[in-house]
Amino acid sequence: MEYKLAIIGFGNVGQGFAEILRDHGPRLLEQFGVRYTIVGVSDTLKGSVHDAAGLDPSDLIDAVRLSGNLDGVDVPDRGWDGAEMARLSSADIVIELSYTDLETGEPATGHIRAALEAGKHVVTSNKGPVALHYAELAAMARERGLEIGVEGTVMSGTPTVLTGMHLLRAAGIKRVQGILNGTCNYILTRMEEGSTYEDALDEAQKKGYAEADPAGDVEGFDAAGKVVILANLLMGVPIGMDDVDRTGISGLTPADIAEAREAGERWKLIGTLEPADGGVLASVRPERVPLSHPLASVGGATNAVTYSTELLGDVTLVGPGAGRIETGYSILVDLLEIHRTAPRAGR
Amino acid sequence: MEYKLAIIGFGNVGQGFAEILRDHGPRLLEQFGVRYTIVGVSDTLKGSVHDAAGLDPSDLIDAVRLSGNLDGVDVPDRGWDGAEMARLSSADIVIELSYTDLETGEPATGHIRAALEAGKHVVTSNKGPVALHYAELAAMARERGLEIGVEGTVMSGTPTVLTGMHLLRAAGIKRVQGILNGTCNYILTRMEEGSTYEDALDEAQKKGYAEADPAGDVEGFDAAGKVVILANLLMGVPIGMDDVDRTGISGLTPADIAEAREAGERWKLIGTLEPADGGVLASVRPERVPLSHPLASVGGATNAVTYSTELLGDVTLVGPGAGRIETGYSILVDLLEIHRTAPRAGR
Repeated sequence: MEYKLAIIGFGNVGQGFAEILRDHGPRLLEQFGVRYTIVGVSDTLKGSVHDAAGLDPSDLIDAVRLSGNLDGVDVPDRGWDGAEMARLSSADIVIELSYTDLETGEPATGHIRAALEAGKHVVTSNKGPVALHYAELAAMARERGLEIGVEGTVMSGTPTVLTGMHLLRAAGIKRVQGILNGTCNYILTRMEEGSTYEDALDEAQKKGYAEADPAGDVEGFDAAGKVVILANLLMGVPIGMDDVDRTGISGLTPADIAEAREAGERWKLIGTLEPADGGVLASVRPERVPLSHPLASVGGATNAVTYSTELLGDVTLVGPGAGRIETGYSILVDLLEIHRTAPRAGR
Repeated sequence: MEYKLAIIGFGNVGQGFAEILRDHGPRLLEQFGVRYTIVGVSDTLKGSVHDAAGLDPSDLIDAVRLSGNLDGVDVPDRGWDGAEMARLSSADIVIELSYTDLETGEPATGHIRAALEAGKHVVTSNKGPVALHYAELAAMARERGLEIGVEGTVMSGTPTVLTGMHLLRAAGIKRVQGILNGTCNYILTRMEEGSTYEDALDEAQKKGYAEADPAGDVEGFDAAGKVVILANLLMGVPIGMDDVDRTGISGLTPADIAEAREAGERWKLIGTLEPADGGVLASVRPERVPLSHPLASVGGATNAVTYSTELLGDVTLVGPGAGRIETGYSILVDLLEIHRTAPRAGR
């Protein structure tokens, strides 16, 4: 079965996904019986190309590598912005990867609405629309018999979201606890190994984990965004960023680290969700966890989530939390779920 | 949507599943829009009952608790054996939970064939048919547009199988390593805490983890069965028990444990699968893993699997490996997957 794809936003994740199709297309056809054809790419900076007959992923990647834009790719249709690509392209599925805005969710939310209105499935790793507008978008999709895949919004391609929503929710989720920010976990791991906070942050920046302005990571905003997303997806409770009781790791000292170690514990930045009186309690804060806790041994930039359930007890998923290929994979796994659950989507 | 279920084998897992339906039926209807109605139960020792109008799970559980059998349950049809229940019952889905035979796979395999021939989906946690005949049974199901759910054959309801098959296989699985037997892991954990092998085994037996004859666990047969199942499910390679290079834990001494500890390592009974030249290399043996390994911190009766993948790196799932409710949950999660992926199955 063939699915035609339009990609809005062609940065790291979009290019990572295109590389996966370039390098693994024949294997995917053999293993899953699916062929994914990119018919359009629209990017504010790199330009916009569309060809209903299909674009070669190699051509797209090479063009961006060589010239930084898509001007050299030979196509019949050119210049569509994101909303136009969502509406006009010949795609079955729109992949929304434009930049993340956790305050307005735009322009991504507009792109997703336009795609659903045009009868197209949507896959996105963009946190903005999912944190702010998931209930509305999911209802729009449901009314139209369409799917909306959001695996990449939490822990990149580690299948945290699909596992939680489809394989663990029926077990009765009583609590979700996660190490949801790799930068913070890397810093805390290095501090345990003897670094100061400042040196560890500096290293994280040199390794490309932390931004030049690290506040989004170390003050817990990024983790809080993921907590908001999980509340929406798993508990159906549309909380916002302001509903998360948030403390970052920048106040932790080597003395704090040493004190925990002496007590047989370890500091982790933990995002927590617990149902409470029809709503949820949501927090992100440094917590001392005993070494026997399933999250205690998760070191470095790795992420993890523990789902505490009524019927199964604790189930923990550990895996990568970021990366261009890893997040590109989240797009693929959502596409394959659409193939598995909505088999009449393609042709 | 309503699904009618026939259960073959009404031991711990069948009763655990019936308890889940009794206690969580209204929630499942609200959360997933599904109603599961047991129409038949057939058990060699407890008797066989069928009522197309549906049986109350409470009545089934209470009858077995009070009298050890189903004789007191008032039904129109009685006395069908497993194959008859699979063929004649009014069920949409047959749940095969008869006893496990890893040498012949019978009688379970016959029940599953009969159910598929009668146009019924199948869900099972029975290792025999899956270890020995999965390729044949999956092909039978596929030809008929039916599903066969086998989540409970590995790590009870921890969604190891569904995650591996549907959410990670596309990432290119290069290696699977697992702690697949809770009894062995409990014994090794206690030995690390200072017990001798004999004392730890004795404790495991008192806690109900290990059988009176512990060979199936401690010599690695149970773990090898799960390795065989994972090879069939994830790599499409139909290996048998004899293809697993198997060593148990009964030869480990306190001196071995101490030596590993001094080297910053820990003994675990690890089942391993690696693709090799069109086939797979499969083993179960005690291995010393560094404390930084994702499986090193998995203690007690808990199980875990690490999938090493080309696109995502390592993804680890940690959760319960046994238990009546936990394995009963595996049946539920397979049923919900049938609902999600084959929406025209029920009515």
